[in-house]
Amino acid sequence: MKVLIVHAHPEARSFNGALTATAVRRLAAQGHQVRVSDLYAMGWNAVLATDEFAGFAQGDYFNPAHAQEQAYSTGTVSADVAREQHKVAEADLVIFQFPVWWFSLPAILKGWVDRVLSRGFAYAAGRKYDTGLLKGKRAMLSLTTGTASTLYTANGIDGDLHHILWPIHNGILAYTGFTVLPPFAAWMPAQVTDEQREHYLERYAQHLAQLDELEPLFFHPRHDYDQHQQLKPGVVARSGVQWNPRAGQSFEASAAAFKQH
Amino acid sequence: MKVLIVHAHPEARSFNGALTATAVRRLAAQGHQVRVSDLYAMGWNAVLATDEFAGFAQGDYFNPAHAQEQAYSTGTVSADVAREQHKVAEADLVIFQFPVWWFSLPAILKGWVDRVLSRGFAYAAGRKYDTGLLKGKRAMLSLTTGTASTLYTANGIDGDLHHILWPIHNGILAYTGFTVLPPFAAWMPAQVTDEQREHYLERYAQHLAQLDELEPLFFHPRHDYDQHQQLKPGVVARSGVQWNPRAGQSFEASAAAFKQH
Repeated sequence: MKVLIVHAHPEARSFNGALTATAVRRLAAQGHQVRVSDLYAMGWNAVLATDEFAGFAQGDYFNPAHAQEQAYSTGTVSADVAREQHKVAEADLVIFQFPVWWFSLPAILKGWVDRVLSRGFAYAAGRKYDTGLLKGKRAMLSLTTGTASTLYTANGIDGDLHHILWPIHNGILAYTGFTVLPPFAAWMPAQVTDEQREHYLERYAQHLAQLDELEPLFFHPRHDYDQHQQLKPGVVARSGVQWNPRAGQSFEASAAAFKQH
Repeated sequence: MKVLIVHAHPEARSFNGALTATAVRRLAAQGHQVRVSDLYAMGWNAVLATDEFAGFAQGDYFNPAHAQEQAYSTGTVSADVAREQHKVAEADLVIFQFPVWWFSLPAILKGWVDRVLSRGFAYAAGRKYDTGLLKGKRAMLSLTTGTASTLYTANGIDGDLHHILWPIHNGILAYTGFTVLPPFAAWMPAQVTDEQREHYLERYAQHLAQLDELEPLFFHPRHDYDQHQQLKPGVVARSGVQWNPRAGQSFEASAAAFKQH
């Protein structure tokens, strides 16, 4: 298996760094090929703008998605984006490693999504969700938080983590066709003991060792929708979160209060 | 009233541009002072990194939140961030104008949040949600989408827009103490008629004219939580979305299927 880790933390010695190092070691030991896109180290340009489109002339009207589609179809994608798209195209599994900043991705990682998962490469007209262009690949979030797991529950002040991650899981990963594996969360690693941090790394190694046994998150298949892209009568809407004990093993016990919703 | 519009679209002639122009005109006509931070035009640096911290020495361990807090307390915030913080500090209302990219903010706007709403300026230890440091100010999202309103419902393939916006409404705006006004959505303006676009601009002008009558989104007050930041027994969790007809007027009728959840 070929694995791409898209890594987004500005400090190499951070716990995010330790998680990625663990993943590289563990996956290599299992015989997988692993590549890391370390966005801060690469000086990744986070901003989708006209400057990356060679075909764009001063005064042209800039529609980002159209520009992406045209660049992709004419083979004029900028070199930095093309390199990342090549890595994604080769990968069987893409892992996103990041600290949760403002209940979401750090801007540098959002900018990787904005620019790399372009219209033409990752999705197109009529090619989204289970016909997305990255169909057949798997993706997974591995994240760290600044607060405790108990706060990220339905009754906790920050709200259910699965609810918070839904726009990413559904709107980025499932949207482009990825099969979405349950996320791995290391809760406020900056404020726990060395033993707890070691424990997180062990659990992450276990999580990676059992990827094939993890139940992917649930998303309604296309045939659950009618021609207006509405769930058909009788199909009960449920979110990408299908709570099950196996997936639950990736979370600390204190997060067991997560609810299906 | 002083209003700051944080505007994030790479094309000045886009419909986002028309919405911001409408807001500037309308709010000025009402006697308000309006400033616009046009992030693309400003060449805003989206990436929170060591380079903005004058006090950071090569080899130091970089903890972004700690670096922000130290910079703020020692008056060494970088000039670009300090200018934006000054605008926010002066504003009674902050409007975020953006196209929904990947069910979220464009990276350049996420980078404005990452860098400007810093620890020390917008939140601090024990100062979050209804004790957030921006308490007393109001904030509002004004967004455009690439697909139809009917897709952004509980039964639509993209899911309830309010659910999608929850991490922004709760995790950025309410978190820092803002009173959150109901969002304004212009549905796929790139694919509708000129008449429909005009209609959107008229509705947006109406939305801005009645800001004081709009019911803010609901978030549980601090006294609903116990000392572990869990909702107290007997308090039923509800999200930031309090569906009500008045707020609903900001959305197209076809989005009336939005449900409270």
